[in-house]
Amino acid sequence: MSTERIEAGLEKIKEYVSEEEAERMMTADALKGLAPDLRKYIVEFAYGEIYSRPGLDSKQRQLVTLASLVTQGATTQIQTHVKRALTVGLTRTEIVESIMQLIPYVGFPRVQTALTAAKEILEQEK
Amino acid sequence: MSTERIEAGLEKIKEYVSEEEAERMMTADALKGLAPDLRKYIVEFAYGEIYSRPGLDSKQRQLVTLASLVTQGATTQIQTHVKRALTVGLTRTEIVESIMQLIPYVGFPRVQTALTAAKEILEQEK
Amino acid sequence: MSTERIEAGLEKIKEYVSEEEAERMMTADALKGLAPDLRKYIVEFAYGEIYSRPGLDSKQRQLVTLASLVTQGATTQIQTHVKRALTVGLTRTEIVESIMQLIPYVGFPRVQTALTAAKEILEQEK
Amino acid sequence: MSTERIEAGLEKIKEYVSEEEAERMMTADALKGLAPDLRKYIVEFAYGEIYSRPGLDSKQRQLVTLASLVTQGATTQIQTHVKRALTVGLTRTEIVESIMQLIPYVGFPRVQTALTAAKEILEQEK
Amino acid sequence: MSTERIEAGLEKIKEYVSEEEAERMMTADALKGLAPDLRKYIVEFAYGEIYSRPGLDSKQRQLVTLASLVTQGATTQIQTHVKRALTVGLTRTEIVESIMQLIPYVGFPRVQTALTAAKEILEQEK
Amino acid sequence: MSTERIEAGLEKIKEYVSEEEAERMMTADALKGLAPDLRKYIVEFAYGEIYSRPGLDSKQRQLVTLASLVTQGATTQIQTHVKRALTVGLTRTEIVESIMQLIPYVGFPRVQTALTAAKEILEQEK
Repeated sequence: MSTERIEAGLEKIKEYVSEEEAERMMTADALKGLAPDLRKYIVEFAYGEIYSRPGLDSKQRQLVTLASLVTQGATTQIQTHVKRALTVGLTRTEIVESIMQLIPYVGFPRVQTALTAAKEILEQEK
Repeated sequence: MSTERIEAGLEKIKEYVSEEEAERMMTADALKGLAPDLRKYIVEFAYGEIYSRPGLDSKQRQLVTLASLVTQGATTQIQTHVKRALTVGLTRTEIVESIMQLIPYVGFPRVQTALTAAKEILEQEK
Repeated sequence: MSTERIEAGLEKIKEYVSEEEAERMMTADALKGLAPDLRKYIVEFAYGEIYSRPGLDSKQRQLVTLASLVTQGATTQIQTHVKRALTVGLTRTEIVESIMQLIPYVGFPRVQTALTAAKEILEQEK
Repeated sequence: MSTERIEAGLEKIKEYVSEEEAERMMTADALKGLAPDLRKYIVEFAYGEIYSRPGLDSKQRQLVTLASLVTQGATTQIQTHVKRALTVGLTRTEIVESIMQLIPYVGFPRVQTALTAAKEILEQEK
Repeated sequence: MSTERIEAGLEKIKEYVSEEEAERMMTADALKGLAPDLRKYIVEFAYGEIYSRPGLDSKQRQLVTLASLVTQGATTQIQTHVKRALTVGLTRTEIVESIMQLIPYVGFPRVQTALTAAKEILEQEK
Repeated sequence: MSTERIEAGLEKIKEYVSEEEAERMMTADALKGLAPDLRKYIVEFAYGEIYSRPGLDSKQRQLVTLASLVTQGATTQIQTHVKRALTVGLTRTEIVESIMQLIPYVGFPRVQTALTAAKEILEQEK
């Protein structure tokens, strides 16, 4: 595990999460005991490599990610990434509209499930 | 079938497809004989209603749509929407990067399938 | 938003939901604040357009819908549509059998998840 | 492998496939060499057990099956089961409408893919 | 329902579940009232036929099954099969690693969901 | 791009692919022009990191991977990984049985699609 690479990932992740969540991510990971490397791969590979690529800004990356999670019906991760979407500066409207945009592509059930998950976060953050 | 609503959809769709494809869509639909209303619903509902909503611009809508199709592995529709992405002004780089961004969320197989489909279109359009 | 189209949808929806649920749907929608148009599109497009097409009766539409939701593992919506299945006159047996029929097509896990969701509704409605 | 059970399955399958296809299924299975028991399980378990259950008629079973395959995007199997749908007496209209009914539940891409697959069969059978 | 076949299934299932769970499976099935044959098919077909095939040992079968459930995001069944994985002698490490192995193939969200589900079981069993 | 990490990945990948395929992978990648880093990530991250973890042997990793691809219906990748399964020493029988094992978990259509894809490779390799 390269210190350099994990540092690059942590630097990048700070564009997407609040100071306190960055802290919490590294210290209070619920899966730390069972799979200590999962978080490392998310930081090093997802953030240190993929999110660090040029060509898209952080708002675009967050819209793309959210759209994939809505399509998969990944409720927990939708909530995590709605928070990150707010952190990178996407508005509440942009988040809701990017979910509504998927009605013709995934149908109403996945959109309804996603909005229900997003609502919980958006109400906390108001 | 309201003339007014289909007109609104056709107006909107022209932001996403070339003149000639707009023409082709309404006259040469392969499913016209079997399911004549499918195209009507895409124009009226998807474009006339959903794409016509405020809150996201056409590039954002196209990124979100493409991310959903990559996640679903919908090869034919990935090709259609890579074309539309180019028409709304997304660059070749933005298209490829929005697919690469999904590696951590859907894994390599879906990304590889999507890039293979996208490649065919991007090479024609060069 | 056309009054006429929403009326057509509401008329159609009354074949699928009880009087009190129709009432509740329009007044107590949990996503009303966040995404006020979601319900409108379900009523206008799903019920006003798609369910209003000729060629299938309401029992057939409900069987097809339920089979899709079981295949997707959409638990919340399975519960909503088991209720609608009862309202259009499908029997408890037809509902359970249409889920059992999917064992060879989706495998045991999705069927087990669907029956567990359906059970909660079928026991309330007894 | 019980002769009795396979006989029950073959008896049942004759409600869903033409005489010649029943013949072909048992003699010309493309996967016979690689996985000789796959066909046996389809006949014995899917047809001999599941399709043989009381509570739904063959048209209902075929609608439910088709809806699941459309939702999965299982193109080859959609074609097989459009043929079986015709054999049990579902009309061309019922088949197309049961696919159209899924627009609000799976979105346009899966419906378009399914109609394209179904079209090939429906045109041969005209 | 053949006594012989159900016996074969029950015999096989005892390799995968503890004595007490085998007992509980047949007597305390939550879906017994609604769908009494679901359990029967799992025992007779899944265990009596598929798991009874030669060519793979019980550890291999359990790894393959778990990988499919992780890919589907089938949380409840992941928990059931983590227990069975332990029963057939897969170690805690092998179970966690077989989920980690799927990061490149399904992405982080499904893996995170699976590990969260697995954790609950692995902590009880320690 | 660290030379060291890509070397580790290439070393690992040689357990899974023949000499000539390893060669071809690095020189004749069809997506090289469009997305030159895709292959790099597969080598560095998938093979250099994930496959290099302790706790599972190469046969187990390959079974788990194949089961995920069958569940996703990822035809092209099923073919690639059937080849790798043979390279790591899984027998033809183990490959076919690991697909058959999934009948109760994904249903017949996905299994049939996977066996059809696998067959093409297994016949070439005989």
